[in-house]
Amino acid sequence: MTLQKMVGLSIIATSLAFGASDLVQKAANAGLKPIPADKAALEKLTDPDKTVTPERVELGKKLYFEPRLSKSGLISCNTCHNLGMGGVDGVEAATGHQWTANPHHLNSPTVYNAVFASRQFWDGRSPDLEDQAKGPMQAMPEMAAAPSLVEARVNSMPEYVEAFKKAYGNDVKIDFNTITKTIGIFERTLVTPSRFDDFLNGKKDALSDTEKEGLKTFLAKGCTACHTGVALGGSMQKFPLVKPYKYANVGDFKGDKNGMVKVPTLRNITETAPYFHNGAIWSLKEAVQEMGRTQLGVDISDADAQKIVTFFGALKGRKPAIDYPQLPTITDKTPKPQMK
Amino acid sequence: MTLQKMVGLSIIATSLAFGASDLVQKAANAGLKPIPADKAALEKLTDPDKTVTPERVELGKKLYFEPRLSKSGLISCNTCHNLGMGGVDGVEAATGHQWTANPHHLNSPTVYNAVFASRQFWDGRSPDLEDQAKGPMQAMPEMAAAPSLVEARVNSMPEYVEAFKKAYGNDVKIDFNTITKTIGIFERTLVTPSRFDDFLNGKKDALSDTEKEGLKTFLAKGCTACHTGVALGGSMQKFPLVKPYKYANVGDFKGDKNGMVKVPTLRNITETAPYFHNGAIWSLKEAVQEMGRTQLGVDISDADAQKIVTFFGALKGRKPAIDYPQLPTITDKTPKPQMK
Repeated sequence: MTLQKMVGLSIIATSLAFGASDLVQKAANAGLKPIPADKAALEKLTDPDKTVTPERVELGKKLYFEPRLSKSGLISCNTCHNLGMGGVDGVEAATGHQWTANPHHLNSPTVYNAVFASRQFWDGRSPDLEDQAKGPMQAMPEMAAAPSLVEARVNSMPEYVEAFKKAYGNDVKIDFNTITKTIGIFERTLVTPSRFDDFLNGKKDALSDTEKEGLKTFLAKGCTACHTGVALGGSMQKFPLVKPYKYANVGDFKGDKNGMVKVPTLRNITETAPYFHNGAIWSLKEAVQEMGRTQLGVDISDADAQKIVTFFGALKGRKPAIDYPQLPTITDKTPKPQMK
Repeated sequence: MTLQKMVGLSIIATSLAFGASDLVQKAANAGLKPIPADKAALEKLTDPDKTVTPERVELGKKLYFEPRLSKSGLISCNTCHNLGMGGVDGVEAATGHQWTANPHHLNSPTVYNAVFASRQFWDGRSPDLEDQAKGPMQAMPEMAAAPSLVEARVNSMPEYVEAFKKAYGNDVKIDFNTITKTIGIFERTLVTPSRFDDFLNGKKDALSDTEKEGLKTFLAKGCTACHTGVALGGSMQKFPLVKPYKYANVGDFKGDKNGMVKVPTLRNITETAPYFHNGAIWSLKEAVQEMGRTQLGVDISDADAQKIVTFFGALKGRKPAIDYPQLPTITDKTPKPQMK
C-alpha cells in the first residue's frame, strides 16, 4: 500500500468514525436509548413487590409455557407470543379458544422488550406486564379461563405449590394475582440487546454503512416522534393522526376512548410480521410507507423506506437462552380440559 | 447399635439385595429391557439413510417446534406432543386445525421413547417415526398442511435452506420427505432413561421396596405379555382380547383391519393421562384394572392396581434438555397462514 493510499484510508476512517459519533449523538437527541446493560438497572424498572429472583423467573417461565392455564389445556402464553418467533404468532389476528379470532382482528404484539413499554395492550388499558397477563388468560378468544379455574389447576399440582413456596415463602397465597404476577416477572427478563444497542453504546462499526444511512433516514423523517426511548415505541399516540389508515376497516379498531393506540416497539420488527394493530400489512416497507402517510403526512419513497427497513435489521436482538421447561404432572384434583 | 441389630440388618440387606437380583432376572425373562446406555447402540436402531448427526438433530428440533409447518401457522408437532408434558397434550382427543377433534376421538401418544415402538399410530399403519411425521402434518384435524405448502414454507426461509445444506450437503432436495425425515431423526433422540433402567442395569436400590412390590405384581399379573421390551409396549396386539372395553363407544375405533391396536409405552405413563386410545380414562389405577379385564380377563384388586401404579412411578424418565429453538424469519415468498 502506498503512503498516499494509507493516508487516504485513514482520513476516510476518521470521517466515518466522526460521522458515527455524530449519528449516535443525533439518535440520543431523538430519545433513542440502549437497553440497560446491567441487570440491576433493569430490575430498577421493577416494582419492589415484583422483585426478579431466579426462583420466580424459573417459575414464571413454566407458567408462560403452561397450556393448562387455558380452559382447553391447549393454549399457553407462548402460543401467541412464541419466544422462538420474535415473541409473536405470525398470524394477522390472535386466534385462541375454539379457533376464535380476536373480534377486532387485533394482532399479537411481541413479548420481547414489552417491559420497556409505558402501557400494555393496543388500547393501553393495562399499566404493566403483571396486569397484562390477566387479560389473555380470561379472554374468550384467547385462553378463556376463569381465574378460579387457573387457580384450581395450579394448586392441584404439588410441584407448582412447592415452586411457589420456594419463590415467595411458605405463606404464599397461590391466587390469580400471584400467578399472573409471576408470569410478568419472567417476561421482564425477555429483553434482546441488538447491534443497535452496541452502536449507541459506542461500538461504531456495529452498524453497516447502509444501516447507518437507514438510521439517518429514520431520524430525518421524524419517525422518532413516536418510535423512541429504549423500546423505540411503547407509548400511546393518536392513530391515525394525519390521514386515514387504509386498512382501518379490518376489525374496525378505534384505539382507546381518545383514539390513542399503543406504538409498537421496533425491536425485532423484521421478525414480527404482519404489522399494524390489525395485522393487515405483511411488507415492512409498505408498513413504513403507510406510517409515513398516516402519522407524518409524508410520502416516503421506495428507496428511503428500503433504507429504513435496512436499519431495522440492526434491531434484531440477541434472544435470551430458554431451557424448555418440564411442567408439573396433574393429579386427580386437577380440573379437566374443557374444549367448549 | 448392638451386634445383634447389626447382624440382623445385614441379613435383611442381603436378602433384599438377593431379592432384587432375582427380580431383575425375572423382569429380563419377561422381556423387559433397559434403554441402551450408549448413543452408538441407539443409533444402530437407525436406518443408515437416517443417520443421526448433530446438525440434523438441531434442524429436526426446529422443525418439531415449527408452527409454520401447519396450514394455519399455529400448530407444531409440539402442540400435541408437548416435550414439557411427557410428550403429550393432556387432552382426551387430539385437537388441531380449526379446533377439530380427531374423528375417532384418538388420544395423542407420547413422542418420548416412540423410537422403541415397532409400529407407529394406534392402528400401526406406519413403520417408523420418519414415516409417521407425514401423517399429522397433512391430517385435516391436525396440522392440515399439503406437502406442497410445507415445502414452500420451508424453502422460502433462507435460514432453513442453509440448515438443510449443512445437514445433508449442498445438493439436498428440501422436499416433504426430507423435512419429515429430519423430524424423525430428532425424535430418535427423545429417550428417557429412568430409575427402572438403573435397576435393570444393576443398581438394586434404584427402586423403592414398594416399587419392587409393584414390579413383582406387574410381572405376576402377566402385563408383560404386551408391555415388554425397551418400550414396555410398542407392538400390535388384539384389543379388546377377552372382554369388551367399557368405553369402546367413545370414538368407536376398531384398530387395524384385524382389530389390532398399538400397545402404548408405559414409560412416563404417570405423566401422560388420559389413557387408552380414546383418552376415556383419566385414572391410572382404573386404566390398569380395565386392562386387566379386557386383555387378561382378570379382576385386579384396588390394592394390586395401586402397587402396579406405584411401580409405574419408577418409569418416569430423565428428559433430554431442550434449548428452545429460535426459528427462521419469513420472507415475502413465504405462503401466508390459512386459518380456514
